[in-house]
Amino acid sequence: MTDTATGSLVVVGLGPGNPDQMTPEAANAIAAAEDFFGYFPYIDRLSLSPDQRRHASDNREELARAKAALVMAAEGRRVCVVSGGDPGVFAMAAAVCEAIEDGPTEWRNIDLSVVPGVTAMLAVAAKAGAPLGHDFCAISLSNNLKPWAIIEKRLVAAAEAGFVMAFYNPISKARPHQLDQAFDLLRDHLPEDVPVIFGRAAGRHDEATRIVPLKDAAGGMADMATCVIVGSPETRIISRDGKQPLVYAPRSYRGGSI
Amino acid sequence: MTDTATGSLVVVGLGPGNPDQMTPEAANAIAAAEDFFGYFPYIDRLSLSPDQRRHASDNREELARAKAALVMAAEGRRVCVVSGGDPGVFAMAAAVCEAIEDGPTEWRNIDLSVVPGVTAMLAVAAKAGAPLGHDFCAISLSNNLKPWAIIEKRLVAAAEAGFVMAFYNPISKARPHQLDQAFDLLRDHLPEDVPVIFGRAAGRHDEATRIVPLKDAAGGMADMATCVIVGSPETRIISRDGKQPLVYAPRSYRGGSI
Repeated sequence: MTDTATGSLVVVGLGPGNPDQMTPEAANAIAAAEDFFGYFPYIDRLSLSPDQRRHASDNREELARAKAALVMAAEGRRVCVVSGGDPGVFAMAAAVCEAIEDGPTEWRNIDLSVVPGVTAMLAVAAKAGAPLGHDFCAISLSNNLKPWAIIEKRLVAAAEAGFVMAFYNPISKARPHQLDQAFDLLRDHLPEDVPVIFGRAAGRHDEATRIVPLKDAAGGMADMATCVIVGSPETRIISRDGKQPLVYAPRSYRGGSI
Repeated sequence: MTDTATGSLVVVGLGPGNPDQMTPEAANAIAAAEDFFGYFPYIDRLSLSPDQRRHASDNREELARAKAALVMAAEGRRVCVVSGGDPGVFAMAAAVCEAIEDGPTEWRNIDLSVVPGVTAMLAVAAKAGAPLGHDFCAISLSNNLKPWAIIEKRLVAAAEAGFVMAFYNPISKARPHQLDQAFDLLRDHLPEDVPVIFGRAAGRHDEATRIVPLKDAAGGMADMATCVIVGSPETRIISRDGKQPLVYAPRSYRGGSI
């Protein structure tokens, strides 16, 4: 293998699921690649030509998938790794970087690029109004790779500092209790009527948005395809006859000291 | 005006600036609208037909712009309000909601929708690697509409809880000092070698990405078109021969208690 044979790796965000929410940049990157790595349902979304090859794998296989993609790129192929939403938010871009840092030096020479996409919280927020219109944070509730104590610390810090929160990976079959634990903890630090938005499959045909006050929020309202947004004490709700209420973060800080 | 004459208002995210980073959903929404409201440079980006009308206005006119758009939608027209990036992140969707809440009841009946887009921090992160690959927050550094003390409280809370931070509105002619104040404050709460990414005009032809350690970060490295990302103690940097380093947030929490 010579230097000129070194291939490329592009990490592409497919957006929330509606093909109309995938950027032309992502579509162009997909059209130009030869080999595709990703979690089964994301690989299934791709419309590929007969000479483009699929290498689908299960979730929780992110690092192995990243390494396999890098091996193939180092062999000179044009490789694409796909993520739902944005690849840089709790997704494959970090796994690829981690594999590069821990891998052979030549992987650092691979032509690497990342194509951003519309991440889930933005699609869910759009369905609800503008709940992320002011300072907010994004937290993964998965404790597969970080201690639950760190997650709790971040939840409390975010609540007390007035950040709206978006939860990624809120729940899974292996982690059925974390979301309820998070709501229980937040009920000690936020008003009980702060709105919680459960946005499921935003942008897809089976999308659903549910808005409940924090006091009524329950883990069973979410599944793996749900992004959960928890408001702050500043968050406003606008009721509308015959329509879902609008939830938004005011641009002005109206509260006292927090 | 009858009920059936009630028009529509769609708030559309144009993405970071590269037309290839605007979704087909946004393009379709623009094609279907008659009247366009937005900040001058965003309105300038639109390719409109002769019968589509532009109503451009200055920045810091967000609420007046939202009201003007709602008045026209209530008259039965198909109105589009545009934002750069995503309209739900420090942008027009919140201003429209605020105008609806404070406006005449009939505005709540307007057919309102929000079309998400790739927000600036995602485009900047993509250029740097995966700095937003784990828990992060987004903070507006503008104290036009909130007290600086609240911003400082959020900066400290985010630093101490281990969130990576993305700064929107980091600096302007009217607010030349906030970003340096933020860096000074963060230097008391974060290691001096935490990477800071200055992403200017990501996705546009004049884009530029600069990565410096926190100890060297200075407000003069940013302008109004810059999104700034400040790493956490967990953030990793991968050096590469002849290429910009990669900056990423590891998926696993490796630190001790924070």
